[in-house]
Amino acid sequence: MKTLATLEPLTTRLIEIRRIQSAASVLSWDQETYMPAGGGAARAEQIATLEGLAHQRLVSDEVGHLLIKWIDPATGSAESTAEGWDEPSRALLRETWRDFNRAKKLPSDFVIRLSRECSLAQQAWVTAREESRFSKFLPSLKIVLGLKRDEAQYLGYANSPYDALLDTYEPGATVAQLAPLLTRLRERLVPLLKRVQASPVIIDDRCLHQSFDRHKQVEFGRLVLTAMGYDFDRGRLDLSAHPFTTSFHPTDVRVTTRVFEKDLPSCLFSCIHEGGHGLYDQGLDPRYYGTPLGESLSLGFHESQSRLWENCVGRSLAFWRCFYPMLQHTFPQQLAEVPLDRFYAAINRAAPSLIRVEADELTYNLHIMLRVEIEQALIEGRAQAEDLPGLWNDKMQSYLGIMPERDAEGVLQDVHWSMGAFGYFPTYTLGNLYSVQFFEQAKRELPQLHDDLEAGRLLPLRQWLEQKIHRWGRMFTPDHLARRVTGSEVDPEPFLRYLEEKYEALYRL
Amino acid sequence: MKTLATLEPLTTRLIEIRRIQSAASVLSWDQETYMPAGGGAARAEQIATLEGLAHQRLVSDEVGHLLIKWIDPATGSAESTAEGWDEPSRALLRETWRDFNRAKKLPSDFVIRLSRECSLAQQAWVTAREESRFSKFLPSLKIVLGLKRDEAQYLGYANSPYDALLDTYEPGATVAQLAPLLTRLRERLVPLLKRVQASPVIIDDRCLHQSFDRHKQVEFGRLVLTAMGYDFDRGRLDLSAHPFTTSFHPTDVRVTTRVFEKDLPSCLFSCIHEGGHGLYDQGLDPRYYGTPLGESLSLGFHESQSRLWENCVGRSLAFWRCFYPMLQHTFPQQLAEVPLDRFYAAINRAAPSLIRVEADELTYNLHIMLRVEIEQALIEGRAQAEDLPGLWNDKMQSYLGIMPERDAEGVLQDVHWSMGAFGYFPTYTLGNLYSVQFFEQAKRELPQLHDDLEAGRLLPLRQWLEQKIHRWGRMFTPDHLARRVTGSEVDPEPFLRYLEEKYEALYRL
Repeated sequence: MKTLATLEPLTTRLIEIRRIQSAASVLSWDQETYMPAGGGAARAEQIATLEGLAHQRLVSDEVGHLLIKWIDPATGSAESTAEGWDEPSRALLRETWRDFNRAKKLPSDFVIRLSRECSLAQQAWVTAREESRFSKFLPSLKIVLGLKRDEAQYLGYANSPYDALLDTYEPGATVAQLAPLLTRLRERLVPLLKRVQASPVIIDDRCLHQSFDRHKQVEFGRLVLTAMGYDFDRGRLDLSAHPFTTSFHPTDVRVTTRVFEKDLPSCLFSCIHEGGHGLYDQGLDPRYYGTPLGESLSLGFHESQSRLWENCVGRSLAFWRCFYPMLQHTFPQQLAEVPLDRFYAAINRAAPSLIRVEADELTYNLHIMLRVEIEQALIEGRAQAEDLPGLWNDKMQSYLGIMPERDAEGVLQDVHWSMGAFGYFPTYTLGNLYSVQFFEQAKRELPQLHDDLEAGRLLPLRQWLEQKIHRWGRMFTPDHLARRVTGSEVDPEPFLRYLEEKYEALYRL
Repeated sequence: MKTLATLEPLTTRLIEIRRIQSAASVLSWDQETYMPAGGGAARAEQIATLEGLAHQRLVSDEVGHLLIKWIDPATGSAESTAEGWDEPSRALLRETWRDFNRAKKLPSDFVIRLSRECSLAQQAWVTAREESRFSKFLPSLKIVLGLKRDEAQYLGYANSPYDALLDTYEPGATVAQLAPLLTRLRERLVPLLKRVQASPVIIDDRCLHQSFDRHKQVEFGRLVLTAMGYDFDRGRLDLSAHPFTTSFHPTDVRVTTRVFEKDLPSCLFSCIHEGGHGLYDQGLDPRYYGTPLGESLSLGFHESQSRLWENCVGRSLAFWRCFYPMLQHTFPQQLAEVPLDRFYAAINRAAPSLIRVEADELTYNLHIMLRVEIEQALIEGRAQAEDLPGLWNDKMQSYLGIMPERDAEGVLQDVHWSMGAFGYFPTYTLGNLYSVQFFEQAKRELPQLHDDLEAGRLLPLRQWLEQKIHRWGRMFTPDHLARRVTGSEVDPEPFLRYLEEKYEALYRL
């Protein structure tokens, strides 16, 4: 049986490429956290240089020859030999072949240009958002959109150019597969929201919008992260304009949050959310760093981890039985008189709102649908960058019945398009669906889970996720791993049932 | 006349190489400031990968062929053509040829290994220093020392292998040239110190060792940096174990400090010192980024800037006439009753002490001599890593009459050897000598300088330094630029006179 030892000439090269990419990630993290504003233009060039180098090395003849030596190009699988290959080797070859072929389709010059323009656009977005002026972001957006349309052409596709970009984040996913999922969600969520809005139960969440010391908020987020098993010897928590998680190696995985004095949930749930991402990256096997076996599977899977912790755990009554007394202790003046059930209802209040990352579980996916429809139209050329604010406001009105007054609360709220991350949003909805599938499976396999959560013991759940999902990297495809863990591929039914039960109880429907 | 435009195929490559090196510098800065401890091993590999890439690209045939096209290898100068070359082009070719030939002598594997071992040794040093245990650092030191001895052999030398390393930091400097300078300093400084110690004047510096809020100390450091013209839109101030300055581009130059509650001078003077370095890097011409014309000239020149600000400005009575009232306002409880002349004497108190970076101007160079003698013996093989603590303590006794009780206050106090920076220390003494030469020249050329300092107007001096030194990068050699600015090469006389006058007044000798 041939093993990874055979592939060592290949993995040595892959590790070097990953180190260059990790260095680029350090530069990006720094850009979002500590870089002085004046350093932006030079930083864009430095990151682009590294991205270009990594790309050139991946598509090199050297890597190509090694792959062809072991792979049948007709099937993209490890060549059958008398000895055969073990499973990790077959997976490593399959996934490297995928990465190699996708990279091969893009000229290195294009990769460098795209990287540079995205760094610059991201910096322009920060300023435009601060000033709440879409027009200030428009020139950068036009450039990035043009490049992403080009990228879809380079990559190729069967039906929609949008599929080519979607596949970057969620291997194998297509619009055709997603559309029925989204329709089914809309058909059940819109009526549920109507019933909630018609309910005589009024949830008052003013207790969450008192004045909360920012420093104490961050410290409480740090406490919850520690309880989740996020390892601060291999991680950090910092502040940034848009919360994110990044990883340079399983021994250095960093999360960020943001904090507002009058909005307790913002810092709290972004810490738990990013912590879920962080646990995934800390749970990858460091022996496989640099190869696909040491990488997360897809953004849908990644988001399943963050949403599982944020919602299934972090918005559950069980979790707060242990943590609410600690939160009250941290903010006695604000919360001592607020009983647990009122706090629990407040953090789960469902109501149409403007900001996606602060949306409740019920309306969250409506925010995603709006974005997916818009970005698909942009990439397919049915809409232009100039149309964005109009499209945004119309769809907000039709899906959520409200409209932003300022661009910062509307079309400028998300960082994604400035980063060129078109095709990324659908993975949020996939993540939501997977999160409930995985959590229900965990409940079946860990009979003590509910008691553990009530007692603040979060580590058994983390360990289960690590064993079932994190440590496998890209060993299996997303569909395969979903079946392996839950017995089924992505399925909206558990998610819809979970939401219906939760909101029927909260609003006594 | 041929200009830089002709050299564009070369500069494009040099800029790419510099961007890779700048990325490595970001990773090093992060390692010293924010990186979680667990990330150290992976970080060492990432930095080594980037250093290796930069080295490979510099010594590539591509760069070699371009250089040979324009340079006469016999002289190392731009080939004479009918048209001739302008001065920037000649300088760019001369300095790139120097860098290329030095790099050519080192195998890329060696460069990668050296980088990796130095990152790891630096991390080991941090721990060993915290625990004050030299034995914990010894294994790493042996490895680094072995590699630096190898490096000297690769680079080649006429007399001492130490010269090969010294030349890295101070182009053209040799032990033979330094030794008489150091002897002359010792011959004048040791008697001066004896006279100070015999003086009936006793300077009491307890006012500097009260309890000072750490946060306020850093904020005062920030205030002085701003007054110096250090641009926070193109820089940052952070904390690290050992204060340093690093630059990724003239638009992103970062300084660090450290802060102790009971030691006001530590944070204060390290801010001013690193600020002096920072002004040099912010003053380099961004149009030349990536080429030798956009780089600092030598470490001796760099140190001249930090010491000029720290000592000639920051320990002068004139400077404190304006800034002391602000410092008193920041720490009224501690300083309101301390008059300016007592504060001025306290920050200039001369006494043998253990820590180099906190030494007074008089004893500082004795600390350097000790280190230079030890590292020269180590590189020449006359001493071994194991001998270090013994050598250190003996020399402390003989030069300064005191001995450290703990390794952290002795042989483990400096980061340099862990970074492989053997041959770096002499540039500190050169910097001290240059700093006074430049400051005296500035006084001659800026008749208002004394009044400016008394009024807190620091920008005219910064501008003078930028015009005379910073903006030139490596256009001239160190000797040439020193002559151009002051009319003479490095000269200990102004420095010795400055010290004698200052201490004769302070101690009424």
